[in-house]
Amino acid sequence: MAALARANDGPAWAYGRDEITRRLDALYSELFEREVRIFPLATGTAANALILSCLTPPWGAVFCEQMSHINADECGAPEFYTNGAKLFAVPGQHGRVTVEGLEAALATLPRGDVHHVLPKVLSLTQATECGTVYSLDEVGALCDRACGEGLSVHMDGARFANAVAHLGCSPADVTWRAGVDALSFGATKNGAMAAEAAIFFDPAKAEEFEARRMRGGHLFSKMRYLSAQLEAYVTDNLWLRLASHANRQAQGLASIIDEVSGVTLLHPVESDEVFVRFEDHDAITRLRDSGVSFVPWDIGSGIIRLVASFQTTDDELRQFRAALHSVLQAESELPPQV
Amino acid sequence: MAALARANDGPAWAYGRDEITRRLDALYSELFEREVRIFPLATGTAANALILSCLTPPWGAVFCEQMSHINADECGAPEFYTNGAKLFAVPGQHGRVTVEGLEAALATLPRGDVHHVLPKVLSLTQATECGTVYSLDEVGALCDRACGEGLSVHMDGARFANAVAHLGCSPADVTWRAGVDALSFGATKNGAMAAEAAIFFDPAKAEEFEARRMRGGHLFSKMRYLSAQLEAYVTDNLWLRLASHANRQAQGLASIIDEVSGVTLLHPVESDEVFVRFEDHDAITRLRDSGVSFVPWDIGSGIIRLVASFQTTDDELRQFRAALHSVLQAESELPPQV
Amino acid sequence: MAALARANDGPAWAYGRDEITRRLDALYSELFEREVRIFPLATGTAANALILSCLTPPWGAVFCEQMSHINADECGAPEFYTNGAKLFAVPGQHGRVTVEGLEAALATLPRGDVHHVLPKVLSLTQATECGTVYSLDEVGALCDRACGEGLSVHMDGARFANAVAHLGCSPADVTWRAGVDALSFGATKNGAMAAEAAIFFDPAKAEEFEARRMRGGHLFSKMRYLSAQLEAYVTDNLWLRLASHANRQAQGLASIIDEVSGVTLLHPVESDEVFVRFEDHDAITRLRDSGVSFVPWDIGSGIIRLVASFQTTDDELRQFRAALHSVLQAESELPPQV
Amino acid sequence: MAALARANDGPAWAYGRDEITRRLDALYSELFEREVRIFPLATGTAANALILSCLTPPWGAVFCEQMSHINADECGAPEFYTNGAKLFAVPGQHGRVTVEGLEAALATLPRGDVHHVLPKVLSLTQATECGTVYSLDEVGALCDRACGEGLSVHMDGARFANAVAHLGCSPADVTWRAGVDALSFGATKNGAMAAEAAIFFDPAKAEEFEARRMRGGHLFSKMRYLSAQLEAYVTDNLWLRLASHANRQAQGLASIIDEVSGVTLLHPVESDEVFVRFEDHDAITRLRDSGVSFVPWDIGSGIIRLVASFQTTDDELRQFRAALHSVLQAESELPPQV
Repeated sequence: MAALARANDGPAWAYGRDEITRRLDALYSELFEREVRIFPLATGTAANALILSCLTPPWGAVFCEQMSHINADECGAPEFYTNGAKLFAVPGQHGRVTVEGLEAALATLPRGDVHHVLPKVLSLTQATECGTVYSLDEVGALCDRACGEGLSVHMDGARFANAVAHLGCSPADVTWRAGVDALSFGATKNGAMAAEAAIFFDPAKAEEFEARRMRGGHLFSKMRYLSAQLEAYVTDNLWLRLASHANRQAQGLASIIDEVSGVTLLHPVESDEVFVRFEDHDAITRLRDSGVSFVPWDIGSGIIRLVASFQTTDDELRQFRAALHSVLQAESELPPQV
Repeated sequence: MAALARANDGPAWAYGRDEITRRLDALYSELFEREVRIFPLATGTAANALILSCLTPPWGAVFCEQMSHINADECGAPEFYTNGAKLFAVPGQHGRVTVEGLEAALATLPRGDVHHVLPKVLSLTQATECGTVYSLDEVGALCDRACGEGLSVHMDGARFANAVAHLGCSPADVTWRAGVDALSFGATKNGAMAAEAAIFFDPAKAEEFEARRMRGGHLFSKMRYLSAQLEAYVTDNLWLRLASHANRQAQGLASIIDEVSGVTLLHPVESDEVFVRFEDHDAITRLRDSGVSFVPWDIGSGIIRLVASFQTTDDELRQFRAALHSVLQAESELPPQV
Repeated sequence: MAALARANDGPAWAYGRDEITRRLDALYSELFEREVRIFPLATGTAANALILSCLTPPWGAVFCEQMSHINADECGAPEFYTNGAKLFAVPGQHGRVTVEGLEAALATLPRGDVHHVLPKVLSLTQATECGTVYSLDEVGALCDRACGEGLSVHMDGARFANAVAHLGCSPADVTWRAGVDALSFGATKNGAMAAEAAIFFDPAKAEEFEARRMRGGHLFSKMRYLSAQLEAYVTDNLWLRLASHANRQAQGLASIIDEVSGVTLLHPVESDEVFVRFEDHDAITRLRDSGVSFVPWDIGSGIIRLVASFQTTDDELRQFRAALHSVLQAESELPPQV
Repeated sequence: MAALARANDGPAWAYGRDEITRRLDALYSELFEREVRIFPLATGTAANALILSCLTPPWGAVFCEQMSHINADECGAPEFYTNGAKLFAVPGQHGRVTVEGLEAALATLPRGDVHHVLPKVLSLTQATECGTVYSLDEVGALCDRACGEGLSVHMDGARFANAVAHLGCSPADVTWRAGVDALSFGATKNGAMAAEAAIFFDPAKAEEFEARRMRGGHLFSKMRYLSAQLEAYVTDNLWLRLASHANRQAQGLASIIDEVSGVTLLHPVESDEVFVRFEDHDAITRLRDSGVSFVPWDIGSGIIRLVASFQTTDDELRQFRAALHSVLQAESELPPQV
């Protein structure tokens, strides 16, 4: 908010020719240790769909994990922006595409015949929809395989900060150094008001971006308000501090789940998301009635999703712990806290 | 050809206002035992894609077997015509979607949230890509389930004649009486020069068809040449006679496969297609070298596809039998012929 | 900014289920004196293109003034969102479509033949690209004519506040009471950070809006930040106060133009825009060198655009006056000020 | 029909790998005196829309005469195939775009700003919708201007044979030698059953054609039936003989119009079309009642269109002459025949 108030001070050029926006290329080039092109946007769906439309023709195939946001949660935005490219849903492991899964999907798509779409993009979500994180080796191996097939690699980084904080690596290591061509860089889930960015590591692939952004209605006249968020976000390591906090609190949630019976973790907890399966499905209702907010992920299977945020306090963890014990009818005597 | 020559005789009105085209609605309404709307086209892909675009908005989901033509062999034509609707590839049994498969696919698609596409169409291929045929009960059960979910049902009938000939039923039984809303009625694979039709059993669903056909460049000025083919095709039961012949010859091929070792049928043979797996993959090469024409379906797995046609002669079957025995190094003494 | 800071206080539901967004329907229904549906967005192009895509099929025609933003300044966003509807550029008078112009355009489009797109929408810009304002009678007459042809009417209100302030009418009078079906309600040009709204007066026409917004990547997860702007904007008449100020300062600019020779007003000044033609084209360069900011509208014809804003001060007017006199080499003695 | 019957003889490879189709590249390369790529199609709308989609991105502008088929008679097919490119309707002279008209249109489209679509294609119709023909010099001057702006040039040759027959030039002269990049080569209006071709003079611009044709549903499995028409059409100069006949008969119609009062020619008659304006609009009704077939082009203005064809006989001209004299209540004594 402070950055926004500063951006609000005085007149500015429109459509991204303002001072703040013009600073972003340099700022993010430094962050990513190479020249990048960055385009501020307001939603992650816009970033994903616009990037994909730059990486594939309408007759291309995009390989992605079946639960990935682009495949399952964007109401067909990638298909709309690419004018009908085909998403191949690859079953993964805890939300991660595997090299074997990618190979199996590629094998279903014969080459050299105009009847079939052409394999064009591999899209990886980092951190994944399951809250897991690809290791550097995993990203590298997938990019190698994709590159060998002539695919571009897109990374959906709605939770990129959480992944980088978890890996403790340089943002460059897990993106272009591993073979990623373009990144949807998310800030909204990690504290920004509404700020995402499309970042291209290969400027040649960004050539169509500006026309596509304009046609999509995503060119902000007062772009400085987006840019100010993106500037403040990475200044003084703010983004990683916020994400580390969220990751740490997610670990706290995971510990709480681990300590009681009747609930299990569905996936390794590596970012800010915690997926919990309840043996007793009714306990989910009781948990909600007790005032805990969560996403009823797959109620038929007794699965909920908890998300820790940059704002989640230790107090809130304690309240959750108490509520969980209560609804699971645990012993009246809580075990000593972690 | 005779029908075309007759159509060529004298002037005619353009864009479907000619005498022949105007007779088609009545002719096909009689064939299907109810009022239908029929639109002549030249390719099956056009019929499929145009029909689907009338049955789903861009934010809809189309459920289909994973090997279906619309999903695997049309280079994204359905996505192009629907402006990006999403095809859900359902794994089937011998090319047939099952009720369980449909239910599993529906279960992955939550309702009531704008993040997800809406389930809109079930597309069945009759006969299937594997040469199998849905029974009347199977079509009925699938349509019931689809209807219960508010889906429209499309039938891709590129090999519709073969399916009807196999089932020995009325065309009405396996389409609208079972719950099908629109049919891609194919004639090209069964003897026509280039003639397919989009047939709507519910005229309300055909409302947008003419505008969409025009925009797709599929409105023929001299439509009578398409219509003449479609008229001759169903006159005096020609279509079923041709298809029955092809089906019978496919049974002949299947018998030949059955009688020798080293080759097996991959799917039940119920129409004009015969999928054969070779234990010795090199035999496939030898078979081709011996002059037999076939589609190398999945050479890595030793699978080829044979297609019997309305023109396949008994002599050709005998030649195939001899060639197959030869390449499989069968005994010099052929068993007595079937 | 104050409204944003308040919206920032505490957690909130995502995707428009927050408290602020839920208040908007009622707030704007009161403002427009009837039940409306309002959808917050961040850009005017998104509002225009999304609304148009709800009002026309791909095979429809949209009639609009040739200089209108949807036709000339959105890089084809309406064509993208409508999947290829056709914009008919109607030459207007000072940026206003006339009934005669609409009729002439309609006459070029024969009916009843699938070769031609169907007339579907009339889009009016209020205030226009020329800074002029349609009178209530003019809007009414155009809507009557459009309605008689079965067209929906869209109003691009990027400068709607300026128009309403100029007319001194109720927002209802110049929209639905006159026959407008949907309004792109702009706040960004009149002081908001980035806030526009799609407002539908006929809820039936908004049915597809939410799916289209999602596919366009325009559904904000933290929608409250858009909604807070839209709430503050119309509270205590803020929007009209800001617009009245801008209009008044534009009148001030116009008076300055009137008082000197060598420059003329290109259009009546009825909102915040002032188009000026210079006899001596070099004077434009000198004006820029003197530090005045303006849009070089059509330099070949000696035309620039001045825009007064909610922030334009009397001091700035005085500076402009001095600069203008100076570059036009006016008498050393300035006439007494207006 | 004879060519079709020959093509029907014996089996053939599908999807254009047949013998006839493979001969077309060489045949048309010879006809056009350079290497060309030719793609058989069944409708002119498909040829136009597919070619345009290869020459412009969705954010491009296509300049064309306002009455051109792509702009006025294809229900938005170009917009559909290009995913929303913008057609700029240029007013022409007797259906011909002029250099001045092109320049005026280009001037309305500022460069260098992402708000505006990019000028990408000039589309010329040869012969035009008015039955006139561009001279070689006119085509050359327009192509030069277009080329100078970085535009590709498309020629809609639905009546290409009539134009070449009128000019008496080589097909090469009026296409690539003058600067045309791609041609919609029409045969249907000049005697074929349903055969058009997309011809690219620059193979690099044809790269996307096959994928786009497949997605459009325009890849014929039995392509030889299209190819056989296109082969027979240009063999032994058949196409020019047919077109010359039609042109000659159109001149005959024009002479008849010239000799009577009360009717005038609207445009110079240079191909097979004759546009006639009647002073007495009721005479049009009487003409139709007398059995003459024509297109009621613009009845409000008393304009009809007559089209001579490759089949039009001298007898038919005589009948028309008699009918026209009769409905115009000419003297009982007909003047001696021309």
